[in-house]
Amino acid sequence: MTHKIAILGASGYTGAELIRLIATHPGMEIVALAANSKAGQSMAQVFPHLRHLDLPMLVKIDEIDFSGIDLCFCALPHATSQSVIKGLPKDLKVVDLSADFRLRDPEEYARWYGGQHDALECQAEAVYGLTEFYRDDIRSARLVAGTGCNAATGQYALRPLISDEVIDLDEIIIDLKTGVSGAGRSLKENLLHAELSEGSHAYAAGGTHRHLPEFDQEFSKIAGRPVKVQFTPHLLPANRGILATVYVKGDPKAVHESLQSAYADEPFVAVLPMGEHPSTRHIRGSNFCHIGVVGDRIEGRAVVIAALDNLTKGSSGQALQNANLMLGYDETTGLMQAPVFP
Amino acid sequence: MTHKIAILGASGYTGAELIRLIATHPGMEIVALAANSKAGQSMAQVFPHLRHLDLPMLVKIDEIDFSGIDLCFCALPHATSQSVIKGLPKDLKVVDLSADFRLRDPEEYARWYGGQHDALECQAEAVYGLTEFYRDDIRSARLVAGTGCNAATGQYALRPLISDEVIDLDEIIIDLKTGVSGAGRSLKENLLHAELSEGSHAYAAGGTHRHLPEFDQEFSKIAGRPVKVQFTPHLLPANRGILATVYVKGDPKAVHESLQSAYADEPFVAVLPMGEHPSTRHIRGSNFCHIGVVGDRIEGRAVVIAALDNLTKGSSGQALQNANLMLGYDETTGLMQAPVFP
Amino acid sequence: MTHKIAILGASGYTGAELIRLIATHPGMEIVALAANSKAGQSMAQVFPHLRHLDLPMLVKIDEIDFSGIDLCFCALPHATSQSVIKGLPKDLKVVDLSADFRLRDPEEYARWYGGQHDALECQAEAVYGLTEFYRDDIRSARLVAGTGCNAATGQYALRPLISDEVIDLDEIIIDLKTGVSGAGRSLKENLLHAELSEGSHAYAAGGTHRHLPEFDQEFSKIAGRPVKVQFTPHLLPANRGILATVYVKGDPKAVHESLQSAYADEPFVAVLPMGEHPSTRHIRGSNFCHIGVVGDRIEGRAVVIAALDNLTKGSSGQALQNANLMLGYDETTGLMQAPVFP
Amino acid sequence: MTHKIAILGASGYTGAELIRLIATHPGMEIVALAANSKAGQSMAQVFPHLRHLDLPMLVKIDEIDFSGIDLCFCALPHATSQSVIKGLPKDLKVVDLSADFRLRDPEEYARWYGGQHDALECQAEAVYGLTEFYRDDIRSARLVAGTGCNAATGQYALRPLISDEVIDLDEIIIDLKTGVSGAGRSLKENLLHAELSEGSHAYAAGGTHRHLPEFDQEFSKIAGRPVKVQFTPHLLPANRGILATVYVKGDPKAVHESLQSAYADEPFVAVLPMGEHPSTRHIRGSNFCHIGVVGDRIEGRAVVIAALDNLTKGSSGQALQNANLMLGYDETTGLMQAPVFP
Repeated sequence: MTHKIAILGASGYTGAELIRLIATHPGMEIVALAANSKAGQSMAQVFPHLRHLDLPMLVKIDEIDFSGIDLCFCALPHATSQSVIKGLPKDLKVVDLSADFRLRDPEEYARWYGGQHDALECQAEAVYGLTEFYRDDIRSARLVAGTGCNAATGQYALRPLISDEVIDLDEIIIDLKTGVSGAGRSLKENLLHAELSEGSHAYAAGGTHRHLPEFDQEFSKIAGRPVKVQFTPHLLPANRGILATVYVKGDPKAVHESLQSAYADEPFVAVLPMGEHPSTRHIRGSNFCHIGVVGDRIEGRAVVIAALDNLTKGSSGQALQNANLMLGYDETTGLMQAPVFP
Repeated sequence: MTHKIAILGASGYTGAELIRLIATHPGMEIVALAANSKAGQSMAQVFPHLRHLDLPMLVKIDEIDFSGIDLCFCALPHATSQSVIKGLPKDLKVVDLSADFRLRDPEEYARWYGGQHDALECQAEAVYGLTEFYRDDIRSARLVAGTGCNAATGQYALRPLISDEVIDLDEIIIDLKTGVSGAGRSLKENLLHAELSEGSHAYAAGGTHRHLPEFDQEFSKIAGRPVKVQFTPHLLPANRGILATVYVKGDPKAVHESLQSAYADEPFVAVLPMGEHPSTRHIRGSNFCHIGVVGDRIEGRAVVIAALDNLTKGSSGQALQNANLMLGYDETTGLMQAPVFP
Repeated sequence: MTHKIAILGASGYTGAELIRLIATHPGMEIVALAANSKAGQSMAQVFPHLRHLDLPMLVKIDEIDFSGIDLCFCALPHATSQSVIKGLPKDLKVVDLSADFRLRDPEEYARWYGGQHDALECQAEAVYGLTEFYRDDIRSARLVAGTGCNAATGQYALRPLISDEVIDLDEIIIDLKTGVSGAGRSLKENLLHAELSEGSHAYAAGGTHRHLPEFDQEFSKIAGRPVKVQFTPHLLPANRGILATVYVKGDPKAVHESLQSAYADEPFVAVLPMGEHPSTRHIRGSNFCHIGVVGDRIEGRAVVIAALDNLTKGSSGQALQNANLMLGYDETTGLMQAPVFP
Repeated sequence: MTHKIAILGASGYTGAELIRLIATHPGMEIVALAANSKAGQSMAQVFPHLRHLDLPMLVKIDEIDFSGIDLCFCALPHATSQSVIKGLPKDLKVVDLSADFRLRDPEEYARWYGGQHDALECQAEAVYGLTEFYRDDIRSARLVAGTGCNAATGQYALRPLISDEVIDLDEIIIDLKTGVSGAGRSLKENLLHAELSEGSHAYAAGGTHRHLPEFDQEFSKIAGRPVKVQFTPHLLPANRGILATVYVKGDPKAVHESLQSAYADEPFVAVLPMGEHPSTRHIRGSNFCHIGVVGDRIEGRAVVIAALDNLTKGSSGQALQNANLMLGYDETTGLMQAPVFP
């Protein structure tokens, strides 16, 4: 039996990444692809690297007949996603990759995204899509909200440490470096090759990045009290990959053990031997996340470094992992491709 | 049933690429990995991107028991490959990725590689590994000689045109651009990031590159008379990918039709619509080859542009494709992963 | 005494490069900077790398009082340049960096640029700005038309060979690789980092690139009969630099001698010893052009390889070199900065 | 009058960068270049980007006649520098770019560099070369010890804040990102293009990097009590540039004012308006350092971000700035070249 899949927002990078991953999935068949701005084109025109696949033409969202579709991935821009999902059949399984359903508190949403949410009833039922920590909820969910790619990386480094109470909750700093594909395929001067290559800079420093409320929500929930981290993202001159260097106060050995124990049985999250440094190059194009721990020369301090691919484990790979759960597949189906190095 | 596989030279890029591809192959199991200089280490140490795989430790070649092994990939440096293969069991199937068995004429070998061949008896039985053109021979071969990655790219662009007699055989120019992984993992000043990034240069121009005798051998054989091409390779500041821009004299439409007809049923070679340009980015990390044809403003001239990934279709992917044939698998098994873009 | 300089189109890459070079020029003072779309901003906002300079604010072109200005660089987009220059004071010296005044024949202009020229009277007086070959005309010119950056590179490789009649005029192929800054700071999907890095592709192959009529015009003029070259540009994943690999039929030694003799006294053009390959990395950020010659294994054929920086020798450096001549400075003033490597 | 200059270690990147900068210096003439491993070669062979300069051939150090030389730059590897400098004429002015004379305490040197210092008498007279803070000492010094490039970047961000007592001395974290040229031209697998491009990783985390004792020495001296920072360097896939993201506890406004006040009259250090982020791309190839300050959403915390070019302001530009002082030139002579962007 084959499950029929629709992808809305197929002309962006996360849409293309979903298609790349599903291409070798044994049970899913893509039957509809929507991209309003490029409707009428073939995927070979929009993404020539997918030209070997037999894919439907791009259409507008309202041209899709959703009866017969088993699951819909929604890879639309933030804010547009909510109204589209509101209009979908109420029994259609949906994995959303936008920010629209990540925050549980409508007021937090309004504060960070600058306006009232347009689909509060959907928001109420959405499950936060960090698979390793919401597996059971996701399995039975109708609507799963994919996490921010930066938010996922920081959480892999920190959630077990907060659960296990091995670090000081008031002294967490996440210094994050991300490849440029996380910013999407939009036409902005600062995303041009000539502007971005050969250097680096921080952006949204000081507490203004929209992945912060995800940290706040999740870390506070685990801790049972408000937790606020410091977070500085930087742009790397590379297309894929996030490296989060997380500074914590706690015993380095306890930190390492907490992470090792938390991820011992996880197929995609690997904790390196104490003292080793992960690299974004070693998870590139894959659904794996590598985590390293180093003790500092100053006693009681540790550095936790997490690496994942923003387009895979950070968004589309996570989305497929969640869809597998929702459709009854083994979680790893279609996701065991090894990283591409060099 | 599972076929047992050995890889010699597992600490180089083509060795790692073989492991990456075989990782999701349903019928092959890697039972031995050799790398003399790094024997005793794990693959996770040598190539951390493969740490999720359950692989044997690296050993020295002479520590391997070849009984029970079904097929051996040999990814050793040029010149060392021949003596190793000479010493392997005579009934062991071997796919060699070095240059040692590519040339049919021992004198040509001696001329281009600077010395007598050390395993002439093996050379005599070796089949040239350009799958699409030697498929039947490969299926029954014991020893297959993988092609040069540049040599493969140029041949995909040119072989049908020579067979179909649609171009002037004395006026062929191949201007080729290649990523740096083709030069391997060796420690050379000119392969350092600081020396190679952010620019380009030609090397081995004028007819000194060692992939030239492959062109000579193959094109002359097809034409039934000596054919000599002009060939200028350039280094690109990118890790993967070869783009061959081939200048021919002939009717552009006939050129395009010849290529379309030759590759109509091929799973991995795609001829783009007339006038379209392929890009190395669109085949990255995959076994696909994209070919474009553009007619020039000067009548009777065409430009044929071929793109493939040197580590996949140009070496390790080709090797697996050939191994599939030798072991009775469908040729595409384990090789249908979509390219990684961006 | 100081000459007062205006730059129109200061928010683009060639505008910024002019300012970078003039920053250390002992005799020029920038007194007006125009950029219609960013008028009202400071250069530190538009190009933070120039923040240490004491520069005028950006204004709209029609806000500039041109009386008292000695020379105006015009770095505006093609087609808009002509009407602006038409409106400037008739005695103002102008160096134009656009394509608008490069072609001598108005019909050729109309054919390649899709419409009638709007300032034919200015076109008639414009001098083609390839300094080494139009030095005397430039010295006394009022309006100098900067060359195309690709057109400059190809001409440095070929002009002496055509003058000296050492090559076959009907068999010239220019395979050119260019960095991305040549495409300017415009917002196009194919100029994004994620689309351009890590690979290469050809564009405008077959005779459609707008630098071709410059080759036609200049080479035909030198030869005294029509000369048409084949020309295929490729995009490199690098910001600066053009490498032109030029295939010619002729005696390699005669080719090398012709180039050596032509450029023996030139301060910026260096012909490498026979057989050496230039690299774009070795002229990066400078006004130098390196040329190499390699003889092919096929008798009577040579490869000429020319490298220059598209933003410096290919446009803004050339413009300043010409402005130096027009204002009576030594041609090299402000231009002897060494290339930046690595 | 011209000062005669020798450069020892001219075949490395800092040696080449010295030559690049001195090329347009009005008062310095390079009369001797040493590089033991490449003695007998010309600079055009070793660094083709310098081929336009009229430079002496490379010789071995002991072939140089130091009489008549006014100042010697020593760009040799760590540990070899000390014995060479010990053997130079005692009245020869020397600017050393190695780590050998940076630490004032011989025991600290032994602890971090793994052995006794071989030239303690020279160490005693060496002046630490961070120009802006040791200007008067440098002016009269015979031997100046260039700072570590990472150490310089962190100090520009932090020294005024420690002097002005506006931050908590026990809570300083430096998360630093550096381009690859800082690692030099040595042949290491992890410096290959294929290993380094397209990603990022941390190295020497936890307090093992050899630039740490410079922080310890300088910050403790300013504070009048021991100060220990946390320091994590990362490698960027870019050739030049260091970005230090420094986390401090203190009032952001006081932090910004402290930095603005400290650098108000400095020609090379620019403090950006509050809230702006510097980029390594905007100081590339220049002697400038840009510093930004952002207040965090958590009260009493600030992020200070400093960017400089490791080969210029971080080593060879700093060295020339110091040499200018030692020879009586204006400090900025030969160093006002604008950054190269893009």
